[in-house]
Amino acid sequence: MAKIITLLTDFGLRDGYVASLKGVILSIYPETRLIDISHLVRLQDVRSGAFLLATVYTDFPPGTIHLAIVDPGVGTERQGIVLRTPRYFLVGPDNGLFSWVCRKEPQWEARSLENSQYWRSPVCPTFHGRDIFAPVAAHLAAGVAMEEFGPPWEPHIAGWTAMVRSERALRGEVIHVDHFGNVITNLDERTVRDFAPPEELVIELEGTRLNGLRTTYGDEPRGVLMALIGSHGYLEIAANRQHAGRLLGIQTGVAVRMSHPKR
Amino acid sequence: MAKIITLLTDFGLRDGYVASLKGVILSIYPETRLIDISHLVRLQDVRSGAFLLATVYTDFPPGTIHLAIVDPGVGTERQGIVLRTPRYFLVGPDNGLFSWVCRKEPQWEARSLENSQYWRSPVCPTFHGRDIFAPVAAHLAAGVAMEEFGPPWEPHIAGWTAMVRSERALRGEVIHVDHFGNVITNLDERTVRDFAPPEELVIELEGTRLNGLRTTYGDEPRGVLMALIGSHGYLEIAANRQHAGRLLGIQTGVAVRMSHPKR
Amino acid sequence: MAKIITLLTDFGLRDGYVASLKGVILSIYPETRLIDISHLVRLQDVRSGAFLLATVYTDFPPGTIHLAIVDPGVGTERQGIVLRTPRYFLVGPDNGLFSWVCRKEPQWEARSLENSQYWRSPVCPTFHGRDIFAPVAAHLAAGVAMEEFGPPWEPHIAGWTAMVRSERALRGEVIHVDHFGNVITNLDERTVRDFAPPEELVIELEGTRLNGLRTTYGDEPRGVLMALIGSHGYLEIAANRQHAGRLLGIQTGVAVRMSHPKR
Repeated sequence: MAKIITLLTDFGLRDGYVASLKGVILSIYPETRLIDISHLVRLQDVRSGAFLLATVYTDFPPGTIHLAIVDPGVGTERQGIVLRTPRYFLVGPDNGLFSWVCRKEPQWEARSLENSQYWRSPVCPTFHGRDIFAPVAAHLAAGVAMEEFGPPWEPHIAGWTAMVRSERALRGEVIHVDHFGNVITNLDERTVRDFAPPEELVIELEGTRLNGLRTTYGDEPRGVLMALIGSHGYLEIAANRQHAGRLLGIQTGVAVRMSHPKR
Repeated sequence: MAKIITLLTDFGLRDGYVASLKGVILSIYPETRLIDISHLVRLQDVRSGAFLLATVYTDFPPGTIHLAIVDPGVGTERQGIVLRTPRYFLVGPDNGLFSWVCRKEPQWEARSLENSQYWRSPVCPTFHGRDIFAPVAAHLAAGVAMEEFGPPWEPHIAGWTAMVRSERALRGEVIHVDHFGNVITNLDERTVRDFAPPEELVIELEGTRLNGLRTTYGDEPRGVLMALIGSHGYLEIAANRQHAGRLLGIQTGVAVRMSHPKR
Repeated sequence: MAKIITLLTDFGLRDGYVASLKGVILSIYPETRLIDISHLVRLQDVRSGAFLLATVYTDFPPGTIHLAIVDPGVGTERQGIVLRTPRYFLVGPDNGLFSWVCRKEPQWEARSLENSQYWRSPVCPTFHGRDIFAPVAAHLAAGVAMEEFGPPWEPHIAGWTAMVRSERALRGEVIHVDHFGNVITNLDERTVRDFAPPEELVIELEGTRLNGLRTTYGDEPRGVLMALIGSHGYLEIAANRQHAGRLLGIQTGVAVRMSHPKR
């Protein structure tokens, strides 16, 4: 079975940077199957890339290698890593991009990318994606053992993955507004369901207050705001056939509060 | 030979939704070849998605499975279907998305997606694409017989595929303005050619009147509006090296009238 | 090993035109592996497409077929060609699109596409991509000898690939502003390095003067303009974590001058 490598970057779709990654991978290991996750992560927004990766990586078959590059610090001292979870490999810069994945996984193991034998030579200091990360992912697909790439490493887990939980409230923030305008928060389904029954919940953000959780967009008339658990497993604010983000005038980073006043 | 599944959605390219479809398909049937048609169908615009699908699906090899998801009614009572034409399979919501295909095909047969054995479990009410349509397409690729997915079903064919023909005129409408600015109508080549010789035709839309059909964009100087039969087989209004849609100030839905006053 | 065909066009991502190319190729030679380079080349901008192609085509395995279509003159008298370099094939319109490739390669050989046996029939005059170029690329992948497609041909090499070199200065121009805002010029690394030591160089464009070359974006604080050799091998003006093109208010075509006053 051909190995799958997925690609997630902030490289955009106009230039040839993504194609360079693919060309390099296919030159090293031609049997690889390449699947794009997204190349429109907001420019240099590690936080948004980390969330996006975490919401889709488990949809792929075991053994899939996820190559993720959102790398504002390229060419500086930040490390590159390969990360192994029970079912997947992930390759990219160690700048917090794998934070959500590490929070979700029961266990993981990482290596620092230090063995230049598996890199393209010379390494261009502004494009580690092409010259280090893509070659490492390709060699991994070709069967090189993870231990070969470098010594053990403790990946950086960023603070912005955490919500704050008290007895009376869950506090989190908006981490993504998607193509449909759905406003996605970092309050995960399990925590929300443990907190209180759906019909008792009160969700507040930016002066808007929503009562209870709905199940699907059609549960409210066109344009009416509602809260529900989205397909990615996180609390989202949506509006049937309308762009909730624009209705609320909201960007990522806005605080969200969930309480259950009836208790 | 690996089965091909094409994907056409309004999911956009920023988020991970398209990648989820692909991951799910590859998890069920790893040999599938995945080809994107477009993920930038105008948001929840079933009409535009239906046209786009109809203009390209026959370019693919026989046996190709076309997975099409533009689904404003996700999670409500609209059915999901699998449709079989003499050469292709199509999978998606039964909301008119397959209207143009059904109009073009001599025969077809549909099944309602009711057998949850071929779905992902649990089904998220806001993402049938990932949890019902993609798994069904993958199982179809893997060789599951169409009859397995559910009982016979009569697909919905929307009224907006029809033009009105009288002896003196053909009346249709603009259904798409493409990336180049070409204004595409629902007047198909055969009907246009049967109606009158190209040089006798008069095309009118929004106060603009064009005489005769041209063959290619270079037939007029830069920026001059012209009518011709586009590569998709429908009447289009174009301008050599310019954006006809902007020149005309036109959107989809605008009425088009074709007559032949000389007769 | 499956043959790779890459695709570079200005067709955009909303319509079905790219999918048509892919469907046609897979119908002729189903084993082909299809890799997108970009479909967002600026509309009908042959120059930008030519540069983009030249910066990535060598990243692919030997034998790769590069299908490139930016074709404002479709349907007029411009020729279609297949071009062979020592390691690659390229297929597309002969309008200068392969100018950079020809400048970089030590040798090449071209054929004019005249043998309609390898075309789709009938040929639509507005979509040679689907009806001529894609079928030719597919037949090439399937093993048809290059000589079969038509007689020898001398490809057109456009003047805009050239910079002007004197003893005291190199003069070139901005040919691309990328997704990150990096301003890329046509001054190539070897010429720049032969001209003077990096620390002695003075780069001028639009009233801005930059001294010396940096190595990576992190060499300057956030937002400070710098010159460096980009990952594509050309001089670029960048700004750490900022959009240099917007900071400079610059578009493609702007003149760049490099001198070394200390000598």
